[in-house]
Amino acid sequence: MNVHGRPTRTIWPSSDGAAVEIIDQTRLPHEFATARLATLADAAHAIRAMLVRGAPLIGAAAAWGMWLALREDASDAGLARAHATLLATRPTAVNLRWALDRVRAAAAPLAPGTRAAAARTLAIDICDEDVALNRAIGAAGLPLIRAIATRKPAGQPVNLLTHCNAGWLATVDVGTATAPIYAAHDAGIPLHVWVDETRPRNQGASLTAWELLNHGVPHTVISDNAGGHLMQHGHVDLVIVGTDRTTAHGDVCNKIGTYLKALAAHDNGVPFYVAAPSPSIDWTLRDGRREIPIEERAAREVSHVSGRLADGTVATIDILPAGSAAANPAFDVTPARLVTGLVTERGVCAANAKSLKTLFPEK
Amino acid sequence: MNVHGRPTRTIWPSSDGAAVEIIDQTRLPHEFATARLATLADAAHAIRAMLVRGAPLIGAAAAWGMWLALREDASDAGLARAHATLLATRPTAVNLRWALDRVRAAAAPLAPGTRAAAARTLAIDICDEDVALNRAIGAAGLPLIRAIATRKPAGQPVNLLTHCNAGWLATVDVGTATAPIYAAHDAGIPLHVWVDETRPRNQGASLTAWELLNHGVPHTVISDNAGGHLMQHGHVDLVIVGTDRTTAHGDVCNKIGTYLKALAAHDNGVPFYVAAPSPSIDWTLRDGRREIPIEERAAREVSHVSGRLADGTVATIDILPAGSAAANPAFDVTPARLVTGLVTERGVCAANAKSLKTLFPEK
Repeated sequence: MNVHGRPTRTIWPSSDGAAVEIIDQTRLPHEFATARLATLADAAHAIRAMLVRGAPLIGAAAAWGMWLALREDASDAGLARAHATLLATRPTAVNLRWALDRVRAAAAPLAPGTRAAAARTLAIDICDEDVALNRAIGAAGLPLIRAIATRKPAGQPVNLLTHCNAGWLATVDVGTATAPIYAAHDAGIPLHVWVDETRPRNQGASLTAWELLNHGVPHTVISDNAGGHLMQHGHVDLVIVGTDRTTAHGDVCNKIGTYLKALAAHDNGVPFYVAAPSPSIDWTLRDGRREIPIEERAAREVSHVSGRLADGTVATIDILPAGSAAANPAFDVTPARLVTGLVTERGVCAANAKSLKTLFPEK
Repeated sequence: MNVHGRPTRTIWPSSDGAAVEIIDQTRLPHEFATARLATLADAAHAIRAMLVRGAPLIGAAAAWGMWLALREDASDAGLARAHATLLATRPTAVNLRWALDRVRAAAAPLAPGTRAAAARTLAIDICDEDVALNRAIGAAGLPLIRAIATRKPAGQPVNLLTHCNAGWLATVDVGTATAPIYAAHDAGIPLHVWVDETRPRNQGASLTAWELLNHGVPHTVISDNAGGHLMQHGHVDLVIVGTDRTTAHGDVCNKIGTYLKALAAHDNGVPFYVAAPSPSIDWTLRDGRREIPIEERAAREVSHVSGRLADGTVATIDILPAGSAAANPAFDVTPARLVTGLVTERGVCAANAKSLKTLFPEK
């Protein structure tokens, strides 16, 4: 997507061929900065510290991290260490394991001297595949938005609500939940997006708003508390979010607070869709609430907030009384019963095992 | 309640008898500062700019504001102007109209020369009554917490969750939702309170956490997104919140986001109680969603956050990309069907017209 009018991805090989470059998402929306990853440690840090984040992008960055690691040590032990190091960075998104397993399976049978090159080729493939999957999700989701638009008086925008950032910044490009939004906007359908700010890290306010602003999509940032009220009053036509891990039975693990929006959508008859590329589906799991590990992140993410001072410099402030503790579960699980449909690269299906199997019979 | 070990109310007549003093709640939790209100304009500003906030305290401050106004102009026109000016400060809390109507009704039949003194006496009475109501709510709610404690293994705390600040800072003293919490804590029942930070103004993180810290009640601040997840995993035994206006049929208007917690409590079988002193009940209304006016506050409350820099100074930062809009509905309505019970000064009742009438037959 465009950054200051120039097509940009979230991760790309450096022009000198010696490293990988990323957008440092911890600096957005106040500063557009890139970072260079040259070692396994760089890649692991970038994922753990959330310079890159979002399930699909975590997978892509991990694949690139395998290349960086195998350049340093392509032995069997090096391969195992790279896989283990990168797998330990984040516990919830299944794309991480999916990408790591894929690179390991491709590299392991090869002679050590050729493993790094193979990993590099596969990392490029995984990135390009991600973009293709997301474009397919956009095509699959577009009719949902178009159908609402046709029921509205001419010129009235379709009101969408999204939580966190499942935009192009969460992927290599295009995004998952945003793919149908960008597709609809580009098709000339009038839209307005309610953007949950998504505390504690504010990925909605920092990243989704920034993306939509850069692409010219009308949007309004709201506190995470506001969505239920807006749905009660008919101001939301459709909710669409991403997923960090979806079970084979359709339970959806996504950013903390997604479950609350799903409850409100259900209570008000608002369709609630999840953009779920197949690498984010964990075919081994059934009950998301019991089986998906939920990352507990640092309390400091709740107590400290970053933003621009009046003079434009970026500062971090502590919002809690000195002495109060904070807790920070990073994801929650929305039961399949609250999900209207999953928007996959092969089309839209109901959130249950049978419908998923119909779309993905090989799984 | 105690501030640095010293019993303190949120509003009190100044020692020189010439004004009213308040805690300036916009400075908490980083600074404990008081402000002096000497005129009608001071009182109206304090309510509008939320130096005082919380439905019961808004009522008390409005009563004191009537005294300040009648000192300046005790004519019939002055009385009408004071009532209108203060009523226009905030639209949602019904305590505001309740207190203003009460002072006007008491002052109107009197000779102008005695109106100010009568208003002063009534303002003192309203404050003392508020404290008495809140103590009665504490006594009525204590058995709910005690019953949970008796079902727990010895020493295991009862886990409560609250949203926004319905603590002593929202009232003259003791609080509404916090009254049973303080009563249980003082009775030696082990407790732990999950405090929703309550964006956008962070009254949970700024005020409720500060109160609980000062009173020694164990607590943990969480983002507003986290409560549903905690309830799904059995970490919340009871939710208790305040109310800005409750209809005669039990619909509860409270801080934005309350509805989302009520949905999650209902979905997980967690009891959801509302501490509702009778001055916050609007006996003229039936359907809260359709009939209660919801205040839309400034977008700046969403985009700008205040807190302490590392050097201890308080600063305000902008968290949005330059160019993104924000919206800020301040309250939502929780339908009576999601409310387990109302904790009033006359006891606990179901959230419906019949049960409320049984407790308040004179209404």
